[in-house]
Amino acid sequence: MSDLTLFFAPGTCAMAVQIALLEANAPFNARQLNLAVGEQRDPAYLAINPKGRVPALITEQGTLTETPALLLYVAQRFPATKLAPLDNPFLLARMQEVNSFLASTVHVSHAHGRRGSRWADDEQAIAAMQQKVASNMRDGFDQIERHYLAGPWVLGEQFSVADIYLFVVAGWLKSDGVELNEFPKVADHYQRMLSRPAVAKALAN
Amino acid sequence: MSDLTLFFAPGTCAMAVQIALLEANAPFNARQLNLAVGEQRDPAYLAINPKGRVPALITEQGTLTETPALLLYVAQRFPATKLAPLDNPFLLARMQEVNSFLASTVHVSHAHGRRGSRWADDEQAIAAMQQKVASNMRDGFDQIERHYLAGPWVLGEQFSVADIYLFVVAGWLKSDGVELNEFPKVADHYQRMLSRPAVAKALAN
Ligand SMILES: N[C@@H](CCC(=O)N[C@@H](CS)C(=O)NCC(=O)O)C(=O)O
Ligand SMILES: N[C@@H](CCC(=O)N[C@@H](CS)C(=O)NCC(=O)O)C(=O)O
Repeated sequence: MSDLTLFFAPGTCAMAVQIALLEANAPFNARQLNLAVGEQRDPAYLAINPKGRVPALITEQGTLTETPALLLYVAQRFPATKLAPLDNPFLLARMQEVNSFLASTVHVSHAHGRRGSRWADDEQAIAAMQQKVASNMRDGFDQIERHYLAGPWVLGEQFSVADIYLFVVAGWLKSDGVELNEFPKVADHYQRMLSRPAVAKALAN
Repeated sequence: MSDLTLFFAPGTCAMAVQIALLEANAPFNARQLNLAVGEQRDPAYLAINPKGRVPALITEQGTLTETPALLLYVAQRFPATKLAPLDNPFLLARMQEVNSFLASTVHVSHAHGRRGSRWADDEQAIAAMQQKVASNMRDGFDQIERHYLAGPWVLGEQFSVADIYLFVVAGWLKSDGVELNEFPKVADHYQRMLSRPAVAKALAN
């Protein structure tokens, strides 16, 4: 039995936290929400995460949310599998930089294609946002391809939770109208990620 | 002389990093960009931060960007002033949770009022986004007021970089059409921040 419970939905950013927990060999309970029917807005779930989003992780000390925060938590709480360069301020900041860029820019670009109503009520405005998703995703991945993927992993030789998060967000490109192969380093990285047992396990869910 | 150079602009999210460096008594060079005339898109600056935004911090090992990453870097690199609960996975994740929420949700809500052209090309769509800024900022601060400000500081008794970032973002409310006083705990926190010497010094710039 575990004292960690992850609320997630397959294919979403929350899958990054699921993969991180699997990579860390952490014992955890997984609770899948059906976002399509709005389970993230059920009163019972809002009592867990008042923001009405996944991921959320119930821990012995309280509930935590926000993908970059949860990824760091998993890495620090289960240090044996070395999912973050915890004692190297520069490399840890680089990892957080990539995670923060994914959360605050790339994920946000993607969300404008599906959740435009967060930022405007007008139907035409929402349609206008959808039209810009592909070019914004392309810009974000162009930055990653050129500057933030040292190779073979994001930080170079050291695998980290930034690789997991990048993999999940790269998985959104096709549905956003962008080909993964436009970004050769990211595409290679994606294949490398697919061969990891934790990733295969998460995708088999 | 210092080997850290911060690129920032007053009043922006980059001011959080400036305040954190001042709180940490860190030696650093400050380079102010004039965003109104587009200095963030000068080729010389794009060579430093290809994303064309502030903040960026040049360190001995390379350049780092993204506010939450830089705040953690300052806290970890200058540990004496204890700007983060570095050895407590739960509290550190809570701090990152707040910083990540500010960066990926609240800052993004604010940006829709000034930089709508990031997400749509159409003038009417950009106007529609502006109309939703106040209610989105209100929603974000409502979450903070109710769930993320233990008091007196974000994490309770321990001051951290999350307090600095919250202070800077709260400073945007008025221009977004929201009164700080709608959120009594945040308003108290704001006053408490104003009395810190590092904050006074940054505001006097
Ligand atoms: N900033 C949050 C964003 C979380 C988020 O937006 N999650 C999406 C799935 S990727 C969600 O729950 N959407 C459901 C909704 O908006 O109703 C994070 O990085 O964790
Ligand atoms: N995700 C970035 C956002 C940085 C950002 O958007 N900075 C703004 C100032 S608050 C900027 O440089 N804007 C100039 C522009 O968009 O041209 C972070 O958290 O540091």
